[in-house]
Amino acid sequence: MSSDYVTQKGQPFDRAAFESLLRRKVFLWQSFEPYGSVKGLFDYGPPLESLENEIIQIWREHFIRTEKMMALKCSMLTPYEVLKTSGHVDRFADFMCKDPKTGEILRTDHLIADVLEARLRSDKEARGEQVAEKEEDPKLKKKKAKAAKGAVKLDDAVRDEYNHVLAVLDDYTGEGMGELIKKYDIRNPTTGNEVEPPVSVNLMFQTQIGASSNAPAFLRPETAQGQFLSFQKLFEFSDGQLPFASASIGYSFRNELSPRAGLLRVREFLMAEIEHFVDPEGGKKHPKFSAVKDIKLPLLSRTTQSSGSTKPEYVAIGDAVASKLVDNETLGYFLVRIMQFMQKIGIDMNKLRFRQHMENEMAHYASDCWDCELLNSYGWTECVGCADRSAYDLSVHTKATGVPLSARETLKEPYEVEEWVAVLDKKKSGPKFKKAAKDVENALDALAQDMKEKLSLDMEKNGKVELGVESVEGGKVELEKDVVTFEKQKRMVTTREYVPNVIEPSFGIGRILYSLMEHSYWTREADEARSVLSFPPSVAPIKVLVVPLQRDVRFKPLVEQLEAKLDAKHISYRVDQSGVSIGKRYSRNDELGIPFGITVDFESIEDNTFTLRDRDSTKQVRASEHDIVRAISRMIKGKETWEEVAARLPAFETSQE
Amino acid sequence: MSSDYVTQKGQPFDRAAFESLLRRKVFLWQSFEPYGSVKGLFDYGPPLESLENEIIQIWREHFIRTEKMMALKCSMLTPYEVLKTSGHVDRFADFMCKDPKTGEILRTDHLIADVLEARLRSDKEARGEQVAEKEEDPKLKKKKAKAAKGAVKLDDAVRDEYNHVLAVLDDYTGEGMGELIKKYDIRNPTTGNEVEPPVSVNLMFQTQIGASSNAPAFLRPETAQGQFLSFQKLFEFSDGQLPFASASIGYSFRNELSPRAGLLRVREFLMAEIEHFVDPEGGKKHPKFSAVKDIKLPLLSRTTQSSGSTKPEYVAIGDAVASKLVDNETLGYFLVRIMQFMQKIGIDMNKLRFRQHMENEMAHYASDCWDCELLNSYGWTECVGCADRSAYDLSVHTKATGVPLSARETLKEPYEVEEWVAVLDKKKSGPKFKKAAKDVENALDALAQDMKEKLSLDMEKNGKVELGVESVEGGKVELEKDVVTFEKQKRMVTTREYVPNVIEPSFGIGRILYSLMEHSYWTREADEARSVLSFPPSVAPIKVLVVPLQRDVRFKPLVEQLEAKLDAKHISYRVDQSGVSIGKRYSRNDELGIPFGITVDFESIEDNTFTLRDRDSTKQVRASEHDIVRAISRMIKGKETWEEVAARLPAFETSQE
Repeated sequence: MSSDYVTQKGQPFDRAAFESLLRRKVFLWQSFEPYGSVKGLFDYGPPLESLENEIIQIWREHFIRTEKMMALKCSMLTPYEVLKTSGHVDRFADFMCKDPKTGEILRTDHLIADVLEARLRSDKEARGEQVAEKEEDPKLKKKKAKAAKGAVKLDDAVRDEYNHVLAVLDDYTGEGMGELIKKYDIRNPTTGNEVEPPVSVNLMFQTQIGASSNAPAFLRPETAQGQFLSFQKLFEFSDGQLPFASASIGYSFRNELSPRAGLLRVREFLMAEIEHFVDPEGGKKHPKFSAVKDIKLPLLSRTTQSSGSTKPEYVAIGDAVASKLVDNETLGYFLVRIMQFMQKIGIDMNKLRFRQHMENEMAHYASDCWDCELLNSYGWTECVGCADRSAYDLSVHTKATGVPLSARETLKEPYEVEEWVAVLDKKKSGPKFKKAAKDVENALDALAQDMKEKLSLDMEKNGKVELGVESVEGGKVELEKDVVTFEKQKRMVTTREYVPNVIEPSFGIGRILYSLMEHSYWTREADEARSVLSFPPSVAPIKVLVVPLQRDVRFKPLVEQLEAKLDAKHISYRVDQSGVSIGKRYSRNDELGIPFGITVDFESIEDNTFTLRDRDSTKQVRASEHDIVRAISRMIKGKETWEEVAARLPAFETSQE
Repeated sequence: MSSDYVTQKGQPFDRAAFESLLRRKVFLWQSFEPYGSVKGLFDYGPPLESLENEIIQIWREHFIRTEKMMALKCSMLTPYEVLKTSGHVDRFADFMCKDPKTGEILRTDHLIADVLEARLRSDKEARGEQVAEKEEDPKLKKKKAKAAKGAVKLDDAVRDEYNHVLAVLDDYTGEGMGELIKKYDIRNPTTGNEVEPPVSVNLMFQTQIGASSNAPAFLRPETAQGQFLSFQKLFEFSDGQLPFASASIGYSFRNELSPRAGLLRVREFLMAEIEHFVDPEGGKKHPKFSAVKDIKLPLLSRTTQSSGSTKPEYVAIGDAVASKLVDNETLGYFLVRIMQFMQKIGIDMNKLRFRQHMENEMAHYASDCWDCELLNSYGWTECVGCADRSAYDLSVHTKATGVPLSARETLKEPYEVEEWVAVLDKKKSGPKFKKAAKDVENALDALAQDMKEKLSLDMEKNGKVELGVESVEGGKVELEKDVVTFEKQKRMVTTREYVPNVIEPSFGIGRILYSLMEHSYWTREADEARSVLSFPPSVAPIKVLVVPLQRDVRFKPLVEQLEAKLDAKHISYRVDQSGVSIGKRYSRNDELGIPFGITVDFESIEDNTFTLRDRDSTKQVRASEHDIVRAISRMIKGKETWEEVAARLPAFETSQE
């Protein structure tokens, strides 16, 4: 799979070289290295930390400020009850199998996939077909190589069965996977031991709040729940107007059983989630949809996927919504805005697609769901999920707490309704039911219209009715006609109360950062290959490299003057005064993705001019300090491109690269 | 205490009104309200979330970019071993007492203080002295009032004893506090029950990483440990040059037993921590110290505190370091930079002081420590700790892991030393000690110079020596002179290896935000008092309020034109088109701290001019759209003040306020 993956220049992607660059330039590393590292936890060093901050600020500008969203920060520590209601306590889980002899824990789907894929590879070998190497941990590979017992050919029918199982593995339940393990004699590949049947393991980190153990809590698995619980406050703050969106940039946690794939599956991760609350009536229109309707998106629909193809079609979002391919305007509007964001931060548009969820992939309450997937060397990776969560979350929390999370709208045209009403004579029901009187009243109010009508008929017939009341002995009471009467009453309806639906674009920032780094990576052909990270100037962690031609005290005042100028403009820079050649210094800072370089040379001393180098083209111009700093500032802000700067400032030829 | 606290205009501070504003304008609330809220956890609504982001960006600019620090992001989930080594497993704890009848958990120091303070108040009452009301939870107050049995006069000696205990309560151990509880018959004030003896409870949230329970972990109590463990990587990345600083903005956790005091004691909080690594030799000088040496700081020294005074002295930092009041230049430089940061974000400089830790307050390894304290209605509050952590952390992690966290410096002038060396004849020691041969060699190498010299004399005298070797039976071996000889050898020393010291400024962002909100709050005298939050333009969550004079379709294109203009300049704004009067709309948006208001009126339709209003003075000017937006942009960036704008643009008189 990853062997087909190429850089932006069409070069085969060398993941080992790429990872070596990330380590060497302290982009990231596994956390707690001196203590042996912890899988699935990463520290970001200065370049990646700054890159993340730049991208978060662009996200804030692109979504929160431009779309007038309400930014929230909610707690990560979350009480048990909240996540019980949301369904995470019951459903946020993976199946695992234990190797009883070693105690090793294996994720069941990974185990099955690993073993069947290994058999299929072995089969291919036995058939003399070419085997594509799967990239994996070298240690594990060695162990497996040891465990392999030469190529084994499979029956054609078995081979087809394995391929089918792998294609639909996501649909299996724990029990189903347990049967597969028995049927195919799947064992722990590193030990050859049989494994125990799959058990469900919740993926939330559990802890407790306070000193007594009766307050179990979790680290949240998504930021969404805190936003839902704040709905009523935000609704009031927005003067009762819908639609509005909340947005939250914060950490979530997932206790992966066996984290793999570097930054793509981690235990602690930054998310940026939007909850757009909208009236379900009226087709979920979006006021700004007409401005984007002609923009084309690469859409990989459910139908295309079912036909076995993975080729997206470029469809104008207006057409996609009109044909109901995309469920509604709001969802469509967000897909466009997501693509524009990706473009802004430097994602390769040839490595982006929107994939619609298959029916069985979606949560039961969702009406449509599209993932923005980015291609990287691990394959197509979900980086933004964009789902219509319907009224599910607000409804379940309202039901669990009794605190309404709903919207109320004053009707422009009030209308009259005629309704069955139960009229209780409280002077009689009070003494009769004592403490339970209030419950009886509530039970009467809660009756649906058809039930009230039915009871009215019963009353007419029998002079009494039976009513279910949970809190009394026996669970029901008898009401005579002197206590309650059922009658039809007319009433003006002036307001409408409803539970808003939620459209949720949810961004995994770490996955986007990782994909962006891969998309930005390429190698420059030279005596020896030189790596470059072509971050756009607006997101590059460091904007400018300042290099004096050589170590010479005469350059010092000029360097200091440049530093002061860049500081005044709040532009981040790095000074490289080391003794190596200019070309080498540029080259090693290209690996940090610094877009611009200023060289201080002997001519600078004479006339205060400097050369300005563009990282991607290695072309240079020469101009005064003022013109150069101004050009850099404009390019960072996106007001000018390098091509425009190169066209207006005099070129500088050099042989130093 | 808080009753003396006044607003920036000298008005008595009304905390109830202030808190009501924060709730009304959705600055913050307790998390999970529909589920009954959780103490010590808060959600930030849009104004506070944005305020925090603005302040974090200023912090990044002021510290990370300006001081060329290395920004890091480290994991929150932290393995047991790391925090065992750092001392947090053993020492990050509070003492608590349990009420055995109700199961209630009480923080021991709070319990003792509450009871003794209540008795002292009662005593004052009995003596007919005036009692200052202590601010506290109204529910608790009610309960206590119920438990109180009328005013009780104490003996003078007892009163003095109580006062003394309260003054030094922080110095008591758990055992000591247990004795106080017995001696003074201290009971749970809400129930009157005796409490169990104090037990130490660790304040870290515990969880586990992965599926097996053999990987206990905690949520980190500070961001510092991750930075220490990254030292070696950063040291290499900075080409082996010291000093350098790392910086991390991230969350830490503290499982408070009974959180109080709103945002000041929370369980989940954002910190910004700097670890400045410096060579301990040469007096911890700072290269930029001379630029700040004349700046005066309000310093409350250890000596002043001992004398019973709380009045800080304004001392130039150069003098403070010269007189050793502040231990070294680096610490002094950071104190100045902290004060400048506070000033930049709008902290009232009359409510800021630097308090030196008393000897018994500091960690045993610290050489000096100053807190930047801000005064708010809860009293003086530690908002930044600035400690010299010496070489402690790097040393203990090196010792625990065997992975060196140290610096190596190539000496400019290598020098020769003569040293005692133990020369082992491995041909003989190998067969003699077998498996333990390596341990014997290590034990010899580890001997200090004076021990080697002593053994050399022993060998001369007895022909054999005894050597402690842990791994062998009996713990020691005998070495004859044919196996080992001790001799003096000359050696050139070309490098110096040392453990850097760490100066750590550690910012509690939540406390700073809370204090800033209190410092910004005041009330405008009018028919009815109107609250204002005077955030500086650079930090205000929303920069501009746009108000059309009244509801009129003719204003719509002008409002849209203004919106487009503000959007293009990335300036955040809020449009208030509600039907109430202009004055009322300004007034209610003053509560959000919006610094500037633009009014669209009938004159605007004619000549495209608008009025610009200043929140703090309520003064207005009138100018073209271009001039107004430009003035706002310049004021936000700090390039111009309102006074300067008001002096150059024509004033506009109105009676609408």
